[in-house]
Amino acid sequence: MGWKGRDIISIREFSRKDIDEVLKRSSKMDKKHNKSLVGKKLSAIFFEPSTRTRLSFETAMHNLGGEVIGFNESKGTSVEKGESLVDTVKIVERYSDCIVMRNPLEGSARLAAETSSIPVINAGDGSNQHPTQTFLDLYCIKKNFGKIEGLKIGLVGDLKYGRTAHSLALGLSHYVDSLRLISPQNLSMPPHISKEISSRTKLDERTDLKLEGLDVVYMTRIQKERFPDVEEYEKTKGVYVLTKERAAKINGIVMHPLPRVDEISPEVDSLKQAKYFEQAACGIPVRMAILEMVMKG
Amino acid sequence: MGWKGRDIISIREFSRKDIDEVLKRSSKMDKKHNKSLVGKKLSAIFFEPSTRTRLSFETAMHNLGGEVIGFNESKGTSVEKGESLVDTVKIVERYSDCIVMRNPLEGSARLAAETSSIPVINAGDGSNQHPTQTFLDLYCIKKNFGKIEGLKIGLVGDLKYGRTAHSLALGLSHYVDSLRLISPQNLSMPPHISKEISSRTKLDERTDLKLEGLDVVYMTRIQKERFPDVEEYEKTKGVYVLTKERAAKINGIVMHPLPRVDEISPEVDSLKQAKYFEQAACGIPVRMAILEMVMKG
Amino acid sequence: MGWKGRDIISIREFSRKDIDEVLKRSSKMDKKHNKSLVGKKLSAIFFEPSTRTRLSFETAMHNLGGEVIGFNESKGTSVEKGESLVDTVKIVERYSDCIVMRNPLEGSARLAAETSSIPVINAGDGSNQHPTQTFLDLYCIKKNFGKIEGLKIGLVGDLKYGRTAHSLALGLSHYVDSLRLISPQNLSMPPHISKEISSRTKLDERTDLKLEGLDVVYMTRIQKERFPDVEEYEKTKGVYVLTKERAAKINGIVMHPLPRVDEISPEVDSLKQAKYFEQAACGIPVRMAILEMVMKG
Repeated sequence: MGWKGRDIISIREFSRKDIDEVLKRSSKMDKKHNKSLVGKKLSAIFFEPSTRTRLSFETAMHNLGGEVIGFNESKGTSVEKGESLVDTVKIVERYSDCIVMRNPLEGSARLAAETSSIPVINAGDGSNQHPTQTFLDLYCIKKNFGKIEGLKIGLVGDLKYGRTAHSLALGLSHYVDSLRLISPQNLSMPPHISKEISSRTKLDERTDLKLEGLDVVYMTRIQKERFPDVEEYEKTKGVYVLTKERAAKINGIVMHPLPRVDEISPEVDSLKQAKYFEQAACGIPVRMAILEMVMKG
Repeated sequence: MGWKGRDIISIREFSRKDIDEVLKRSSKMDKKHNKSLVGKKLSAIFFEPSTRTRLSFETAMHNLGGEVIGFNESKGTSVEKGESLVDTVKIVERYSDCIVMRNPLEGSARLAAETSSIPVINAGDGSNQHPTQTFLDLYCIKKNFGKIEGLKIGLVGDLKYGRTAHSLALGLSHYVDSLRLISPQNLSMPPHISKEISSRTKLDERTDLKLEGLDVVYMTRIQKERFPDVEEYEKTKGVYVLTKERAAKINGIVMHPLPRVDEISPEVDSLKQAKYFEQAACGIPVRMAILEMVMKG
Repeated sequence: MGWKGRDIISIREFSRKDIDEVLKRSSKMDKKHNKSLVGKKLSAIFFEPSTRTRLSFETAMHNLGGEVIGFNESKGTSVEKGESLVDTVKIVERYSDCIVMRNPLEGSARLAAETSSIPVINAGDGSNQHPTQTFLDLYCIKKNFGKIEGLKIGLVGDLKYGRTAHSLALGLSHYVDSLRLISPQNLSMPPHISKEISSRTKLDERTDLKLEGLDVVYMTRIQKERFPDVEEYEKTKGVYVLTKERAAKINGIVMHPLPRVDEISPEVDSLKQAKYFEQAACGIPVRMAILEMVMKG
């Protein structure tokens, strides 16, 4: 399948070979790039606000010489006047060369892609998918270790509701033999995803924060709202916080999709293990690569 | 009257010759354009949010090499701190070369134009005027038929409150011999506008959805709030909905300023008659033409 | 101290020599500039909305060929999800070459600067500092008189809470022998600032609107909320309003940081004394100078 015109909706649609290609192109972008998208326009339509994702797509587009139009919340758009997503897409596709969309509804990105004649990049459709986050997570790992194969990787936190963890687990399953999944009992990886992953990778699911032997500790946010009562939340939270003491013992690196709240102490930032800000920076070359691939091939 | 420095406030200020010139320039823009506005800045000051209009002005400006600054709601502007429109205009005119403004108050665009030393383009002042919408409507008609003269055109829906319909009727009156106006009894064209138009064009005002013989069916939104009671609204709405069945019988094209809500069934989109998305796309060349005309002549 | 990489947090950090250099560079920018910041990116992170400051920074950056990313309110940013300012800064510093920030919390700009490896420009941290406003105020004075030394300058209005008045008084104290401070009793300059200024400049503090002999009358807004009761406010307001009659007698110029509400009558705008819109325009060359200085040296 060619890349030009391709929609980027779910990590599920990408083979190991596809992912390798994105990572290779991202690495090239990191080293050198030219103004390959001069005259091209990106519509950034964010029905739900975002800082990191939107700003890094804008930066990526500017780096390649292209321009960005769009909005950052559905308030004040025609959607508020009752316009359907399909109609909005049918209009902005006539103004631009690519659409990047965030929308609170699961499946909205797929719908937009089916409607649109220009490529659609899913920047998050509710709790469903956010594939460019997974590409940048994988790229950050590869950048640090030179490879992904054979690494020992653990995902920590809310593995039930966290779309980032789902997609990353799916992506990693193409590369690693085993995956450690660490979460509170009530926030473990949903069976339909575990099942999909376990066809390719052995899963080590546990509730204790065992970080020994891991090359990558991938932390995620645990949200209060996910717990039946506050006490339960407070108890669990403490167990899953990465303190400086805990982090210092890790032999590998610490990642986090950000924003973090309490789950990584600020003191960890100064440790050599802390790679989450560098990870955020990986969003630029990865999104540059993807934008160029879908608009230029 | 020269174009350079000219304000674009109301369709009423444009003679047939003026409109012809805008349409001709728009057509040229559609075929080929250069970066004629490099170094120029457009202030897009939208005191009321907008998607389509703002994005198409931004796209138009970018296409010509110019830049855009501005805001998309009065929240968070100095206006919230009590600043007058006149003061806001006096500041942004010092930052840029042209102002495009949307403001909920009727007459605000005229006030801004009187204050400003740089050209002001009215992108909607309440229920009053939105002249670039009319130019793009006329351009879409001309693009489809090669002419406007002699066409049979019907405006359908809320002709009382809809500023789009008022302006388009005024614009069309320079070109056509007759105009069909189809609306519920309580939403018919206001007498002061009918009178103005009927000096140039014969009006056929009716309440039944008679579409036969029309080259252009111009649909508009009927808003619930306009009706004394919900029952009345529901009854009327049904009568004026353009279903696939009704649309398929039309010999001409269907237009709509968008956003639409219920008044055109989504099934109509796939018919050859449906031209409303193409119409939205006409906003780009038309706004490019106008921006170049008022900033460069 | 070199300029490249320097943070611009408080006017207190700038010596007379520093300020002179900014004014000289601003004057050069006013005459001629080139695209010295092509390929550079400015992150404009406004946790509190702004029109004038944000638009003039954007314009300044565009004039020099650079690009701007950012947001204009904390709503819809990761901050709403509980992200700390430090984390936000650590991310955007990886996307760009300079940060300009407005934040309601005093001291936030300093914190951001300590965190960031790229220069941070304070565009207002609560009631604390807004140094580029002071630079543009000083530049406007210099542009009008060819010098600042020896001028008779009066600051009028709310001198207690107005950060603009505090910073300007500090800046002026490097240049003038005396300064007239005119305010209601309950809104006089805080002692810690008077003391700091009076080490360099004689202060003439008064409550009556004595404008005779002034080269510059610098008006500021008096906010209703600052008064114990409405009656007191109404009484005071009347005394401090610059009417056309009062303004016409001034031998010098009238300035105001804008937005104004009632404190200068609109009739004053047409007088030759009125320089406040010209003052706002000074924001462009001054911000161009500062952006170039901190990014290029």
